[in-house]
Amino acid sequence: MDSSHSGLYEVIHRRRDVRAEFTGEPVPGRVLERVLGAAHSAPSVGLSQPWDFVLVTEDEARLAFWEHVQGERKVFADALEGELAARFAGIKIDGVLEASVSLVVTYDAARGAPSVLGRHAIADAGLYSVCLAIENLWLACTAEGWGMGWVSFYREAFLRDLLGIPDEVRPVAWLCIGPVSHLQETPDLERAGWRQRLALGDVLHAERWAGDDTLAQLESMDQLGGAVTGRPS
Amino acid sequence: MDSSHSGLYEVIHRRRDVRAEFTGEPVPGRVLERVLGAAHSAPSVGLSQPWDFVLVTEDEARLAFWEHVQGERKVFADALEGELAARFAGIKIDGVLEASVSLVVTYDAARGAPSVLGRHAIADAGLYSVCLAIENLWLACTAEGWGMGWVSFYREAFLRDLLGIPDEVRPVAWLCIGPVSHLQETPDLERAGWRQRLALGDVLHAERWAGDDTLAQLESMDQLGGAVTGRPS
Repeated sequence: MDSSHSGLYEVIHRRRDVRAEFTGEPVPGRVLERVLGAAHSAPSVGLSQPWDFVLVTEDEARLAFWEHVQGERKVFADALEGELAARFAGIKIDGVLEASVSLVVTYDAARGAPSVLGRHAIADAGLYSVCLAIENLWLACTAEGWGMGWVSFYREAFLRDLLGIPDEVRPVAWLCIGPVSHLQETPDLERAGWRQRLALGDVLHAERWAGDDTLAQLESMDQLGGAVTGRPS
Repeated sequence: MDSSHSGLYEVIHRRRDVRAEFTGEPVPGRVLERVLGAAHSAPSVGLSQPWDFVLVTEDEARLAFWEHVQGERKVFADALEGELAARFAGIKIDGVLEASVSLVVTYDAARGAPSVLGRHAIADAGLYSVCLAIENLWLACTAEGWGMGWVSFYREAFLRDLLGIPDEVRPVAWLCIGPVSHLQETPDLERAGWRQRLALGDVLHAERWAGDDTLAQLESMDQLGGAVTGRPS
């Protein structure tokens, strides 16, 4: 690893899903352009680049979305019982009003169609590309000293209507973006006792789904894999 | 931006979807563990961490998958005509045999269910989380001087059977990973004349879907957005 790239790992591990720490300061357009450029440089199936970004700064739209989110919060809360309900009551789920700007990211399946290279067998591959762009954006915001929060307590039809998004384009995310007072060391949901982070070994398998003890194997192996030998000519 | 984080942008812009440049050298397990740790540190809806990683190094499985991919290549090729067909004929779509290892990433909707915080209104939010992990992995591989290629010329059912993945778990990606001779400056599909990269301004909208001239606005604005004022008490 080139030492100049250890920063990548630092950013990946420092990144948080921000709700409460937005300062709400106005932001310079050139920094927004830089983080959006990172998103737009993501890989995409067949180089389709099927994403669009709608930058939302007007109070009216952000307030309308926030009100919708509170309604969806209640829908989720009403389905919970007992201790889970009590825990959720203390969890902040969005920073829509506090963040400097919001950004809606969408998926346009028609871009590059009909012959999107790499999508004929997996229709969702285009949707996957949009998410790759969102993670680039998230890391770029973190590198800039900003925070980002992904809000998913909404109905896609509501968001389409709110921003005039065509029926054939799918909203994928409402993102809150901007400077933060700090990033939490521990994810909000872990601090709230909602869920804990899993160990890497819990989600790692060797060769087949049921394969186990992979992590212990990895740590001890200096020479792993290699090109397939005896390949067809 | 902290200068130590400019490396993030460098990695984001240097990253490529690799097919032809894998060297096939064996890799150290501890580096694999580090890039997998980056993937596992991705954000996930409700902290569900719904991903699993199956590390595939055995020749037999990689060869079987490669043969399946060639069949799907033919399915796609047969649907093309004229100049498009000719262009596709010259495009390499996978490095399954050449890469040091393969990694299959899956989505388990049952993890953290039934009360996944943030998924009641958008069922695909869990699937989105898996893609965020894949982009972390992609950037980490790039930072390590490795390459990664996402192969999507396959049927999910075939991959499930090949690796014994349960019916309720969805394969999301087959990734080729390992050291490379170099990363191309220009994406493969752009060099092949398949598709060109779009300008950021082409996919950026102000306030609503139809909003335009956003990029010019951004570049000129030093103070953009801010917290919503007149928020409800």
